[in-house]
Amino acid sequence: MNDITAIHPRGAAAVAARLAFLAEIDQLKRVDRQSLITGRSRRENSAEHSWHLALFALVFADDMPGVDVLTVVRMLLIHDIVEIDVGDAPIHASAVDRADIAQRERAAARRIFGMLPGEQGTAFEALWTEFEAGETANARMAKALDRLQPLLLNTLTDGGTWAESGVTEEQVHARYGPVIEAGSPALWAAAKDRVRAHFAKHPRNDV
Amino acid sequence: MNDITAIHPRGAAAVAARLAFLAEIDQLKRVDRQSLITGRSRRENSAEHSWHLALFALVFADDMPGVDVLTVVRMLLIHDIVEIDVGDAPIHASAVDRADIAQRERAAARRIFGMLPGEQGTAFEALWTEFEAGETANARMAKALDRLQPLLLNTLTDGGTWAESGVTEEQVHARYGPVIEAGSPALWAAAKDRVRAHFAKHPRNDV
Repeated sequence: MNDITAIHPRGAAAVAARLAFLAEIDQLKRVDRQSLITGRSRRENSAEHSWHLALFALVFADDMPGVDVLTVVRMLLIHDIVEIDVGDAPIHASAVDRADIAQRERAAARRIFGMLPGEQGTAFEALWTEFEAGETANARMAKALDRLQPLLLNTLTDGGTWAESGVTEEQVHARYGPVIEAGSPALWAAAKDRVRAHFAKHPRNDV
Repeated sequence: MNDITAIHPRGAAAVAARLAFLAEIDQLKRVDRQSLITGRSRRENSAEHSWHLALFALVFADDMPGVDVLTVVRMLLIHDIVEIDVGDAPIHASAVDRADIAQRERAAARRIFGMLPGEQGTAFEALWTEFEAGETANARMAKALDRLQPLLLNTLTDGGTWAESGVTEEQVHARYGPVIEAGSPALWAAAKDRVRAHFAKHPRNDV
């Protein structure tokens, strides 16, 4: 029978646990990031950011040899869920303790993915850990897209967080380039063109 | 070479077209739905709704025989993009012209997915059409989850749109039941339990 309770011995309990997890992660819609959405009406939240990233993956990673698009999509859909407990750490902030954040994010992953039944919770946590480590081809691609998306938003919102923080073109290259290029040199070439066009129009990032 | 320009003859143009599509769909973050998010601070937008749905699919459709989880995830990530042109049609509104909406949504799918290069645009539009028709196992599962998610939100927000529209338990059964049950009888059984518990606590949907 093509259904859930038939393939899980303790079906009803597994369904209830999954619904509790899905209720819990609704809170990601209330975690705000630094990026402005297009139209500049407000900042982006981490749930809609994750949706946007999954579309980046469907569009760019689907036909890429050596990359499994479903794994990249999964990673991007879950990579920010730990922010429900920890919040979003801005890329341009220097005064944050990255080691402390990493430790708290691991605890959040354990807590939140641990709400899922058995092996499923373990698999989600393992996938999040793989993304964080950034060592596999899938994780490198996911991290490249996670860096490309705010870059695109900034070029669409008159500089966005770059304008707010006085970030220069050289700093953009340093902070976005290596991660995007590690996923895809072609994407970084395209991104660099957009960055160049942006700074040509906003030399001192004037809004 | 594991990269985009190498596998697309007109690589740079394809990357630019894809980035233009990804910029365009950012607007989905500005399309509001009827559902309240948990905490009741505001209504949900269609981008974060789509993210939440993709998680429903990863959690419920991954190990379901006869269903391809990647196809269901793809459908749910793109199914609302047409709302950028057409807006969201509320489930509890009766005065809307469904045929007119369907026609305008088809035109929106043609326009927006048509921004993607060649076969990719065609594939996205075909997938959206398959979802809308709701005839394949994957589309039935996607539609079931698209109905289950607002049901879950309503039970988490003291009735949400049910309370606002004076919807009864019988109307919930009629409007959500068949679609959810067609995807998964076990999910509908779990959902019905939640609905029963909600209306036991809010007999006349008093907030």
